[in-house]
Amino acid sequence: MAGFDICPDSNHPPENGHATAGKVITCKAAVVWGPEEPFKMEDVEVEPPRPMEVRLRILITSICHTDLSAWKGENECQRVFPRILGHEAAGVVESGEGVEGLGPGDRVVPVFNGECGDCRACRSEKTNWCAGYAVDPMRSVMRADGRVRFYWVGPDGTHRRPVYHFLNTSTFAEYTVVDAACVVKTPPAAPLNRMCLFSCGVSTGVGAAWKTADLKPGSSLVIFGLGTVGLAVAEGARLRGADRIIGVDINPDKFAKGKEMGITDFINLNDCTKPLHEVIRDLTKGGVDYSFECTGNRDALREAFLSTHQGWGLTVLLGVHSSPKFLPLHPMELFGRKIVATVFGDFKPKSQLPDLINKYLKGEEKLNLDGFITHELPFSEINQALHLLQEGKTLRCLLHL
Amino acid sequence: MAGFDICPDSNHPPENGHATAGKVITCKAAVVWGPEEPFKMEDVEVEPPRPMEVRLRILITSICHTDLSAWKGENECQRVFPRILGHEAAGVVESGEGVEGLGPGDRVVPVFNGECGDCRACRSEKTNWCAGYAVDPMRSVMRADGRVRFYWVGPDGTHRRPVYHFLNTSTFAEYTVVDAACVVKTPPAAPLNRMCLFSCGVSTGVGAAWKTADLKPGSSLVIFGLGTVGLAVAEGARLRGADRIIGVDINPDKFAKGKEMGITDFINLNDCTKPLHEVIRDLTKGGVDYSFECTGNRDALREAFLSTHQGWGLTVLLGVHSSPKFLPLHPMELFGRKIVATVFGDFKPKSQLPDLINKYLKGEEKLNLDGFITHELPFSEINQALHLLQEGKTLRCLLHL
Repeated sequence: MAGFDICPDSNHPPENGHATAGKVITCKAAVVWGPEEPFKMEDVEVEPPRPMEVRLRILITSICHTDLSAWKGENECQRVFPRILGHEAAGVVESGEGVEGLGPGDRVVPVFNGECGDCRACRSEKTNWCAGYAVDPMRSVMRADGRVRFYWVGPDGTHRRPVYHFLNTSTFAEYTVVDAACVVKTPPAAPLNRMCLFSCGVSTGVGAAWKTADLKPGSSLVIFGLGTVGLAVAEGARLRGADRIIGVDINPDKFAKGKEMGITDFINLNDCTKPLHEVIRDLTKGGVDYSFECTGNRDALREAFLSTHQGWGLTVLLGVHSSPKFLPLHPMELFGRKIVATVFGDFKPKSQLPDLINKYLKGEEKLNLDGFITHELPFSEINQALHLLQEGKTLRCLLHL
Repeated sequence: MAGFDICPDSNHPPENGHATAGKVITCKAAVVWGPEEPFKMEDVEVEPPRPMEVRLRILITSICHTDLSAWKGENECQRVFPRILGHEAAGVVESGEGVEGLGPGDRVVPVFNGECGDCRACRSEKTNWCAGYAVDPMRSVMRADGRVRFYWVGPDGTHRRPVYHFLNTSTFAEYTVVDAACVVKTPPAAPLNRMCLFSCGVSTGVGAAWKTADLKPGSSLVIFGLGTVGLAVAEGARLRGADRIIGVDINPDKFAKGKEMGITDFINLNDCTKPLHEVIRDLTKGGVDYSFECTGNRDALREAFLSTHQGWGLTVLLGVHSSPKFLPLHPMELFGRKIVATVFGDFKPKSQLPDLINKYLKGEEKLNLDGFITHELPFSEINQALHLLQEGKTLRCLLHL
C-alpha cells in the first residue's frame, strides 16, 4: 500500500522471544520523573510477563492528549512518578505464556481499555466496560500482583526503583508488559505505522460516531476540539454520510486540516460575538443532531450540550475532564437532550476492533489514516513530539523505536 | 369492569356543547392566589376555544406532585398567580372548531406534553418533544395568542382579572381550554376514572420503564420515591418481567402498597448506616441495571446514579428538580454509566397512548390501575386532597367534578 513505510519484516526482524523469554530485558524507556519534567531516556529493566500477560516490543508509538494531561499531572490523584506514559502504539509480542490466540511474533496493538471476554460486561452487548480490565487512570501497577514490571537501576547498580505503569499500556518504552486482555492482534500484513492509530485516537473518534451516537446519514453534528480524536469523529461521520460537520477550535491552523478530514463548517471560538451554542443553532435551524466534546473543557461541554437540537440532541463526551467540578448542566436540562460518554468509541477492543481493521485494510471503510500522521521522529526525540502536541502543531507524531 | 364507578353515560350526560359552544361559560375552578395559599373555589369565566383549541368539561382530576411543587412556588420563575393548576384528568370535549378527529362529546384525557403530529420532532421516532406543544413549565398563557382563556370577575362585576394556565392543561376547573395537540381521545367505553391516570402519572412511570429504559426481562432496578410515578415504574417493570424491583423511600407507610405493586425489596433511607448506593450494590452484586429517580431530590439523584452497575447502568430521571443547582455528577462519572430524563415516559401522547389504553382495556397489559387510587373526594374538597398528598397519605386522590 502506498504511503506505508513499515511493512511486515521490512525494518524489523520478527521478535519471537526465543533468546529473551523468561528473562529480564534492559532497554530504553522515556521516563517522566515528575510533573512537566522532560522525558528522560533511561535504561530500564523490564521483567518477564506473568501468566496472562505478554511482553511487547514496541515499534511505533505516538503521543495523545491523555499522555500530555498525565505528564502535566493535571489530576492530582494521578500524579505517580517515575512513570512510563504512552498508550497509543503498535508492536510485536516478544513473549507471554498461557495466552490463548496470542504468541511470540504476533503483530499487535496495545489498548488502554481491555476485554477479558468472560465477565458479565464482556458478555453483554451493552458495554465495553470490562469488569477486570477497563481503563483506570488511577492504576499504576499490574493487576495480577499489584506490582510493576519496570525498574530503574541507578548508575552505581544499587538504587533500584520501581517505575510505574500508565493506562494498562506504558508504550514509551522499547519493551512493555501488558495484560493479554489489553492486546489486539492485527493481521500479519497490516502496516504497524497505521495500526498504531487504532490503538486509541482513531478508534475512539470513529466509534463515537458509529457506535456511541449511531450517527445517521444526512445528519448534522458539531465537534468541539479538532485534534486527532475530534477529526476521527469527522472521519466517522463523513463515512456514515453526515450532511453537515461543524468544527470548533480556537486554533485557526486546525481548519485547513479539518477540511481535508470532512469538516464542512468552521467556527473559531475567539471570533464569536455571541454564545457558541447560539451561533450553532442559528447555522442549523435550531441545533445539530449530535455534538462531540473532545476538549476536556467544562465550558465547551456546556456549549456542546446546548448546541444540539431540543428533543433528539445527543452530546457525546470524549474529552478527559481533569477539573473536579461537577457537570455544568441542570437536571431539568436533560429533558429533551441527552449526554453520554464514550470509552474507546464503545468498541470492544479484542472482539470488535479486528473487524474495523480488516475493513480498513480491504478498503471497505475508507478511513483517511494518513491524514492524521503529521510528523515522524525517532523515539529519542520524544520531547520534541511532546512540544509539537502542546503547541497544537501536530495531530499524530509517530515515534519510531 | 368491576371497580369502575364512572362508566360512560352513567353519572354524566354527554356534553355535546350545543347550548354553550361559542359562548363564555361561567363555572367553578380551584384558583390559587399565591404560593401555598389554599385553593379557593371561585366562579371563573372560561372563554370559547380558538381554532385548534378545544374546551373540555373536566369530570375527574387528581393531584400530582408537580401541582404541589407549583402550588408551593418552589421554582421562583414559575410563580404566576392567580392560576388554575392541575394536569391529570379526564373529561369530555364541550366544543372546538377545526380539530380533526376530535369533536364535542368525545371522551378524552388532557396531556401536559402535546403532539402536533407535524413538526420535525413529531415525525421523528427519537423523541416526544413536540416543537410546538412540549411541556413548558414557564408557560402560563395559550400559544395561539399569548392570552389566557380564564377570567375571574370580582363580586362587584368590575374587577376582571386574568387567571393563568398551567402545564398546557389547567384541570382544576369544571371547564378548561387546551390546545387540541394536548388532548388524547379515549374509547367511548373507557371508564374516565381510570383513564385519568393515563393523563400523567401512570403513563410517565410505565413509559419510563418500557420506552425510556427499554427494560429487559430478568433485570434489576431501584426506584427512588414510591409515589404514583415510582410505583407506575414498578408496574411497568413487573409487567416486563423484571427480576428484582427495589423501592427506596423515607416513608415506611409506602412499603405495604409498594409490595402490592411489584416491589420486591424495600429500603428505608432513614435506616441506612452507610451510603445508599453501597447498600444497593451489596444487594445486587455490584449494582442494579436501572435506577429511576422519582423524588426531585439532588442527593437522591446522585445515589440513584451510583446505585447502577458500572458498564451498563442506566439512570432515568423522572423527578422535577426545583433547585437551581447543577447535576451532582462529575463528567468522568458518565464513563460507564448513563443518565437520561424522560417526559411523559417517552410516549407520543396522541399517536402512542391510545394503544396502551386499548391494551389495558382488553386486559393485554395487566396494569393494576385500581391500586393507585387510594382516595376519592368531591372537587370541593381539593384542599383535603392536597393535604393528603403533602402528608404522603395518598397515591392518587380522584376529585369528582
